[in-house]
Amino acid sequence: MTDTTITGISAAQTAAEQKLTDTVIASFAATPDERLKTLLQGLVKHLHDYIREVRLSEDEWNQAIEFLTRAGHITDHKRQEFILLSDVLGASMQTIAVNNPVAGNATEATVFGPFFTQNAPEIPVGGDIAGGAPGQSCWVEGVVTDTFGDPVPGARIEVWEADEDGFYDVQYSDGRVAGRAHLYSDQNGKYAFWGLTPTPYPIPHDGPVGKLLEATNRSPVRASHLHFMVTASGQRTLVTHIFVEGDPQIEIGDSVFGVKESLIRCFETQPPGTPTPDGRDLKNHAWARTRFDIVLAPAITRPL
Amino acid sequence: MTDTTITGISAAQTAAEQKLTDTVIASFAATPDERLKTLLQGLVKHLHDYIREVRLSEDEWNQAIEFLTRAGHITDHKRQEFILLSDVLGASMQTIAVNNPVAGNATEATVFGPFFTQNAPEIPVGGDIAGGAPGQSCWVEGVVTDTFGDPVPGARIEVWEADEDGFYDVQYSDGRVAGRAHLYSDQNGKYAFWGLTPTPYPIPHDGPVGKLLEATNRSPVRASHLHFMVTASGQRTLVTHIFVEGDPQIEIGDSVFGVKESLIRCFETQPPGTPTPDGRDLKNHAWARTRFDIVLAPAITRPL
Ligand SMILES: [Fe+2]
Ligand SMILES: [Fe+2]
Repeated sequence: MTDTTITGISAAQTAAEQKLTDTVIASFAATPDERLKTLLQGLVKHLHDYIREVRLSEDEWNQAIEFLTRAGHITDHKRQEFILLSDVLGASMQTIAVNNPVAGNATEATVFGPFFTQNAPEIPVGGDIAGGAPGQSCWVEGVVTDTFGDPVPGARIEVWEADEDGFYDVQYSDGRVAGRAHLYSDQNGKYAFWGLTPTPYPIPHDGPVGKLLEATNRSPVRASHLHFMVTASGQRTLVTHIFVEGDPQIEIGDSVFGVKESLIRCFETQPPGTPTPDGRDLKNHAWARTRFDIVLAPAITRPL
Repeated sequence: MTDTTITGISAAQTAAEQKLTDTVIASFAATPDERLKTLLQGLVKHLHDYIREVRLSEDEWNQAIEFLTRAGHITDHKRQEFILLSDVLGASMQTIAVNNPVAGNATEATVFGPFFTQNAPEIPVGGDIAGGAPGQSCWVEGVVTDTFGDPVPGARIEVWEADEDGFYDVQYSDGRVAGRAHLYSDQNGKYAFWGLTPTPYPIPHDGPVGKLLEATNRSPVRASHLHFMVTASGQRTLVTHIFVEGDPQIEIGDSVFGVKESLIRCFETQPPGTPTPDGRDLKNHAWARTRFDIVLAPAITRPL
């Protein structure tokens, strides 16, 4: 066990604090589940080191308890403030990082977010995921391969996104499904669909997490993105987004730290009247197109 | 910023994880309140280091979110699961330690607990705090001094304790006040009162924190104790307990880590009929007596 020494604290005081930490760690020694024991003893070590390093005051401790209480009380089956908290502290993204280690040229993962739903409709390659959601039409295409460059046919590709007002269908009041679907890569690993050009939206910020962002001069807004989850036999499941090149929120800072350089894509705007890849008639509307080639890492068991 | 290196993790992966931590820490750079900035940046560092060290799985992360959610939902104006969580992780006691640094021979502090109430009745020196609560009568006496050994007259001494069934008055259904009072030390710093011989009681353990204790083979029971809070002008407020020598729970482990050697007192049982210090007639009941001399540390401003 490493001792924590804080500058300016007497040896007697340091010893007393360390002894307490050691006692608490030892109290978990009889935990039957080894993994739970590791998790709790590590938690105690870091929690105590934190309190000792910042010399947490009793008033600050009280405020932390109150913050957690408010977060608990605003959380219900539709609103999850603890996930938001984890997101804005980068803990969600760090968990993603730990569980999706760098694997050669495999596409990087990013946060899952709270807006995925099971059983989004299936569309054919080239189909439309918008389902009537408002926004600029956007053609998205690419190929799914493994890290050797071989195409992955039949990969299940779930895609979901907010409409141009920044709302997911689950935030609509009428319960309709829009802005989400799944499709399968073809025999050459290719996929394509019509979606919407992504636009920025804020995470829910009318609760304690929003207050935290405000008190720290941080933006609640997420960089514009389109969600992907790709599953294929023998490959590691990929949960990721693509981001929009030139979106100012990338510079300002994505509120949940989801942006990775490698996930930023050029969304080329096409003037009204530009012929579409599949001959679809978009009337006199501008549209956009982008390309996202997906490289799946081989499946692994436990990321240690 | 210290880099965290985890054995068995590739350099590229380590760099990616560290970069994320650094980005999140930097996101708080514009926090106007310097103290809040320090608190949040330290929190991010420890939280990320924890996730990286234990290689937290996404499933474990989910379980943590669910645990916090359950804790939030069981918390109301009478039940505070986050304080219980802080208590059983020793975080409450470490906060007490940090804010009540060792000061010569001053009496040590311990956890405040959730059962203090404002406006407990005043009693004279030698009065009775039991207020009809069931239990063995116990004479408690001592003297309040400063660290130079000079008596502190007029110190306000709040005392509170559970009855022999392990309940505080606030847990009774009829709202009556019992097992608590305040009194003032006399011109020689002396105080004395009739209370109850302390008995063990469990912290509330029908919620997520109780499940945690169960899963880790830990007892929810607190070592038998009597609470004190002593305030006097120019002195650091002392929040502490005295514990009962020979209580087996001291060996088993106090569930909130409140026990300190220096706070354990001998409670001498007096056979029925033994004359009482103030001539009180306890009929044919055994009673107990103990002595607790209190040494107050000088007041300090901020414990750094
Ligand atoms: Fe999203
Ligand atoms: Fe207590």
